[in-house]
Amino acid sequence: MVKQVRAARTRQTLIVAAAEIFADEGYVLATLPAISKRAGVSSGALHFHFASKDSLAAEVEAEAAESVRKLAERCRSEAHTSLQALVDTTCRLLLVLAADPVVRAGFRLSCDPSRKGGAEMLHWWHTLVHELITQAERAGELAHDVSPEAATVAVVAATLGFQAAGAADRAWLAAERVAQFWTFILPRLASSPEHGLVPTGPGVARTNSPGGSAHTVANS
Amino acid sequence: MVKQVRAARTRQTLIVAAAEIFADEGYVLATLPAISKRAGVSSGALHFHFASKDSLAAEVEAEAAESVRKLAERCRSEAHTSLQALVDTTCRLLLVLAADPVVRAGFRLSCDPSRKGGAEMLHWWHTLVHELITQAERAGELAHDVSPEAATVAVVAATLGFQAAGAADRAWLAAERVAQFWTFILPRLASSPEHGLVPTGPGVARTNSPGGSAHTVANS
Repeated sequence: MVKQVRAARTRQTLIVAAAEIFADEGYVLATLPAISKRAGVSSGALHFHFASKDSLAAEVEAEAAESVRKLAERCRSEAHTSLQALVDTTCRLLLVLAADPVVRAGFRLSCDPSRKGGAEMLHWWHTLVHELITQAERAGELAHDVSPEAATVAVVAATLGFQAAGAADRAWLAAERVAQFWTFILPRLASSPEHGLVPTGPGVARTNSPGGSAHTVANS
Repeated sequence: MVKQVRAARTRQTLIVAAAEIFADEGYVLATLPAISKRAGVSSGALHFHFASKDSLAAEVEAEAAESVRKLAERCRSEAHTSLQALVDTTCRLLLVLAADPVVRAGFRLSCDPSRKGGAEMLHWWHTLVHELITQAERAGELAHDVSPEAATVAVVAATLGFQAAGAADRAWLAAERVAQFWTFILPRLASSPEHGLVPTGPGVARTNSPGGSAHTVANS
């Protein structure tokens, strides 16, 4: 039992170490020796858990998608409208991108042409945003002349842009910047200002916890 | 004289070959031997023109910035308002990103954390968008409750997102998708629908030429 716990912990440490290198250096530069060194794990232990760099990358993407799915679910359950859930999800996502190397690496791997055949995270994020916007439409929350598809394109493009720019300049992941985006977008998107939408999301204090604590290399 | 023309042509071929590899594989994977091979040029000739991969990357970024500057100038001279110039510039930029490896590589290098100290193209694009939006504001073209800074953030983030997503999925560089974005954004941004803004930009036929023909590897 103790052995199983230790194995699970080693596996998780490897995933986070790989994510840190994928996020900072890109998929290509990440070597298995660099990952095992960063994780403080022998290369034998790495190969026990993961057959290849690609399988590590797939695991990072799966964990990133799972983190964002949970984050979106939490926002959906807490927000009073689908549009507010969308705002909260993107605000939290940007904070998590800044704090959590696994989520950052998941999005980065998805837009990295050197990792052929990725882009799953991209399609999946597109689907999630589209779902929230069509739910908002059904609930009468969207302005009558807004196409849910066009609004989805704008929100997905902008969040990917925050992520891409944030890789080079962290100012793009600041809460104020995504709030500026929503302050600009919401009067166009919402059917009525009376929905009381908050462009700043659910607040920094509550938001930092899921990403910040979820993925850290224990021994780094 | 013939020698000088040939040298200039070789230099240009090297820049485009490097851009193609930077755009498709990323900065890290691009090796000088791969670039000289792609250009059909000896490694001696490459070293005659460029001392390092970094100097090649800097040249690619400079040419990309120059292409986008010219494209923006042309849009400014042809459009009847600053907002239309902004729409046209982004529409043309997306088409050029699809057609021109130098512009694609310029933006990609700018958001590539493995190329330390880049991000110039990102800052420069931010400045250009901000200029057009503040010109629009001075001309009374912006809706009264729109902050030029917030609108700049939204447009810069979205264009970077189109570029990042386009690296993994070319559908994001299609003219229809950026037109969807503007159809959604313009009613919020513009002070009056009577400005007759066209969300599709200046048209595909006119737009394809500057990027498509500007940068091609002659011997590829």
